[in-house]
Amino acid sequence: MKSLINVPETVVADALRGLAVAHPGLAVDVDNRVVVRRDAPVAGKVGLVSGGGSGHEPLHGGFVGPGMLSAACPGEVFTSPVPDQMVRAAAAVDSGAGVLFVVKNYTGDVLNFDMAAELAEDEGIQVAKVLVNDDVAVTDSLYTAGRRGTGATLFVEKLAGAAAEEGAPLERVEAIGRQVNERARSFGVALTAVTTPAKGSPTFDLPEGELELGIGIHGEPGRERRAMMTAREIADYAVDVVLADLRPTGPVLVLVNGMGGTPLLELYGFNAEVRRVLDERGVVVARTLVGNYVTSLDMAGCSVTLCEVDEELLRLWDAPVETPALRWGR
Amino acid sequence: MKSLINVPETVVADALRGLAVAHPGLAVDVDNRVVVRRDAPVAGKVGLVSGGGSGHEPLHGGFVGPGMLSAACPGEVFTSPVPDQMVRAAAAVDSGAGVLFVVKNYTGDVLNFDMAAELAEDEGIQVAKVLVNDDVAVTDSLYTAGRRGTGATLFVEKLAGAAAEEGAPLERVEAIGRQVNERARSFGVALTAVTTPAKGSPTFDLPEGELELGIGIHGEPGRERRAMMTAREIADYAVDVVLADLRPTGPVLVLVNGMGGTPLLELYGFNAEVRRVLDERGVVVARTLVGNYVTSLDMAGCSVTLCEVDEELLRLWDAPVETPALRWGR
Repeated sequence: MKSLINVPETVVADALRGLAVAHPGLAVDVDNRVVVRRDAPVAGKVGLVSGGGSGHEPLHGGFVGPGMLSAACPGEVFTSPVPDQMVRAAAAVDSGAGVLFVVKNYTGDVLNFDMAAELAEDEGIQVAKVLVNDDVAVTDSLYTAGRRGTGATLFVEKLAGAAAEEGAPLERVEAIGRQVNERARSFGVALTAVTTPAKGSPTFDLPEGELELGIGIHGEPGRERRAMMTAREIADYAVDVVLADLRPTGPVLVLVNGMGGTPLLELYGFNAEVRRVLDERGVVVARTLVGNYVTSLDMAGCSVTLCEVDEELLRLWDAPVETPALRWGR
Repeated sequence: MKSLINVPETVVADALRGLAVAHPGLAVDVDNRVVVRRDAPVAGKVGLVSGGGSGHEPLHGGFVGPGMLSAACPGEVFTSPVPDQMVRAAAAVDSGAGVLFVVKNYTGDVLNFDMAAELAEDEGIQVAKVLVNDDVAVTDSLYTAGRRGTGATLFVEKLAGAAAEEGAPLERVEAIGRQVNERARSFGVALTAVTTPAKGSPTFDLPEGELELGIGIHGEPGRERRAMMTAREIADYAVDVVLADLRPTGPVLVLVNGMGGTPLLELYGFNAEVRRVLDERGVVVARTLVGNYVTSLDMAGCSVTLCEVDEELLRLWDAPVETPALRWGR
């Protein structure tokens, strides 16, 4: 496998330099690996900070901006950022109203955000945390105790970010983040393995005629391997697994997410099958997002995330957002 | 290679069904393969119609909406749409103010849009055309006489679309489209071949240690093959080839476009190198767009498009747009 890079050692720094020049609304500290919305801290506004290993772009740096994250801390590829990054980010965005850490449930991320929260509080910053653990595929896995955090991260960051932008206090922003995570579930499949720049070859073996059901966003093993399935069959499987756990009674937001290497043409076709299953199960879709948002470098595959919403959460979804990857007005 | 599809024969129809349910602002005629903004025809507004083979998503269906295309006609994968689609699209969007066809320079597209223009004019619709031929890699190639139309299509559709949205008459919308094409140049590279759903395997052979310079968006051969290069070396080569032909004296819009299979992390790193070269050559960058916009299914690689702009074109770039793939407010 070939990568469009200079050397593996500078992949993250190079990407941050490229992010900085493309998006003047972001202040990017390449040396310290912190991406902050340029107008931070915003007076009276709760700060939202997230982060995690790189390789899942646009998550998280592409979600920094008005209406979503205040700052993101990118780690090395598939490696947690360190507490120092998170403390710097918190200090940069705290207006005195406090900071919410949005943490995907991977052991390294959880430990480092916990330590960062203590350090930030020592500096007088009020910190709350929301843990995202939406992946119903497996309990415990390669990097996780409990369920992994995947596609629901986008919903947590958007909806809590909208609440923060409107001036909600920290307890409220945290409560919305928790509520979104509790109402959201995901399931992913891989058609190919992922190649990291450092390794330069696929990180696991997935034969030509098979797919992996329940894959994680680092290519962690899922539930089972099967002979290759059609989009229709994958949608039936994935949506039913999610619905077995979520059982929504109200409308849902749908994220049909590409893992990076699957063409958008295919993702839209898959979305048609996802909608068919949801219609058959009597689930009403309020909004749908299709694209590569929570990726695993060049891995082919997709995930489905459903998030049950009430009127308030739907209003927060529709609220304006201005980030590199999600951007809309009123 | 595995694809997330049902069967190759329904890939385009399936994607259109998925596009329709994801984007209520679009009216999608799946049987006749026409994607129209739902509020068309808009009184007094010039209609913008484009189209081409599928497999380049989000181009063109993802660019339909207020501020950009009025309608798109998707063909089969890498195959021109037929005149009937284009005439239907023109009839659906014409308010009496006329329709502009935006045509990428591929032999099939050119012939079919020419025929469609005649048929539409027979129906009393005034039609103008803009041919996009921005790819400086080669003159004449597998599907083209003259230069190929690639990344500049996005700029033509956005800028002419903004002018149409503001109420500019057909001659003005056409003139802006031509001006944008004349001021824009592209160059692309491939790291891997592309796999079409119908073939199910790479359409050409590109060995592990090599890349192809000057590739087209259907994997058509480029200028030369070389031993694999770094992002820095590719940026030097690509930008200099573009600048040898464009020689801008004013600021430029930059599109750092992914071919589909290259991770966004790498595209941003490549953007840093593109900006470095432009800085070294004294070219001022007004705006930068980084992402997968004019793709070639799962092909790994990228292209660079530069478009020289004056104040008026920059204003049109910044004007609101509301499509699946490009969306921003004031």
